[in-house]
Amino acid sequence: MRVRHKPWAKGKLEAHPKIVVPNPKLCSGEWYEVFGREAPLHVEIGTGKGQFITEMAKRHPEFDFVGIELNESIIVTALDKCIEAEIPNLRLIHADAHLLTDFFAENEVDYIYLNFCDPWPKNKHEKRRLTYASFLAQYEYVLKDEGIIQLKTDNQGFFEYSLESLSSYGLKLKDISLDLHQAHDPKNVPTEYEEKFAEKGQRIYRCRAVCSE
Amino acid sequence: MRVRHKPWAKGKLEAHPKIVVPNPKLCSGEWYEVFGREAPLHVEIGTGKGQFITEMAKRHPEFDFVGIELNESIIVTALDKCIEAEIPNLRLIHADAHLLTDFFAENEVDYIYLNFCDPWPKNKHEKRRLTYASFLAQYEYVLKDEGIIQLKTDNQGFFEYSLESLSSYGLKLKDISLDLHQAHDPKNVPTEYEEKFAEKGQRIYRCRAVCSE
Repeated sequence: MRVRHKPWAKGKLEAHPKIVVPNPKLCSGEWYEVFGREAPLHVEIGTGKGQFITEMAKRHPEFDFVGIELNESIIVTALDKCIEAEIPNLRLIHADAHLLTDFFAENEVDYIYLNFCDPWPKNKHEKRRLTYASFLAQYEYVLKDEGIIQLKTDNQGFFEYSLESLSSYGLKLKDISLDLHQAHDPKNVPTEYEEKFAEKGQRIYRCRAVCSE
Repeated sequence: MRVRHKPWAKGKLEAHPKIVVPNPKLCSGEWYEVFGREAPLHVEIGTGKGQFITEMAKRHPEFDFVGIELNESIIVTALDKCIEAEIPNLRLIHADAHLLTDFFAENEVDYIYLNFCDPWPKNKHEKRRLTYASFLAQYEYVLKDEGIIQLKTDNQGFFEYSLESLSSYGLKLKDISLDLHQAHDPKNVPTEYEEKFAEKGQRIYRCRAVCSE
């Protein structure tokens, strides 16, 4: 996703510390204090412009949501959506997903969403894929027993790779869809990117993987 | 697959005991004696008209192959291919795949092929699907450690179900292809049915599952 650089974005993110958590490492193990309650914690890695996580947070007031996004010129659009909609159960983290285990404690998270992440198609870049074993180890660490990783992508090669990687890691696959929009799942919340590709008739792939000990 | 009933088929099958094994239960644990050598044993469940297994046996003289097919009007076509090609490393079993563990001993088989089997799409027929857990238990029993189950199908729903079922059973998935013919795998041997559907531009799905203890 190419986005125009927004030099003012950094300042805007800093101006909204109640939405964009200023020092997320301090929240590790204490997200219930950030949200002021104990509720299942859902985390999206690569939140982008925020359509998915803001809609999810609105639909599911019973859960708390945290969206992580590295690109400040993109996450600022997600921030705009949060400001406009006043969503109490949603926070953003402006940081690299590599730091996941710094932001969340062991067994703190219930659900992880990976939406249309970079497929890194070249073999030499396998380690950068968000379903590579080293990332799965991080997800497993922060997820509770029976916690879920949900993956959506339009990239066939990345989906094939991810099914194998999740399975090799020992996770159990469920709710696989090889053509999500044809299946018309009313619970599906599309991302901006997903809407665009599904409208072109391209297949959207989804699976969930269960972390059981 | 609808096939004209061939009343003469039974007699023809019985007339070729060197190809269509007359009493396969007696071979259990002793297939090396049937083939007169010790070689990796590959079994196709639902051999149909035999294009796949006869071509595999020709390409891989280093392995021994057994094809199982219940419908006598169909397996007789496979028999014709065997007679014509004189393939020493191939035998047929005219029987129901439910009896797999009667025909093969524990840890006797190296590879199982499930090609375009009936998807049984209704939920109430789940137990009839050849990737239902009770069938996987039979495959696991006859397969050696690190033995492989290979599945090919054109049926999206059946493939989704099968990936989940194989994964839930604890098998590791590998070599997943969500569009096998676009990937142009030179090692792929198509079945009659597969050729017909792939020519129409329909996707062929493939995966392999590893039985490790």
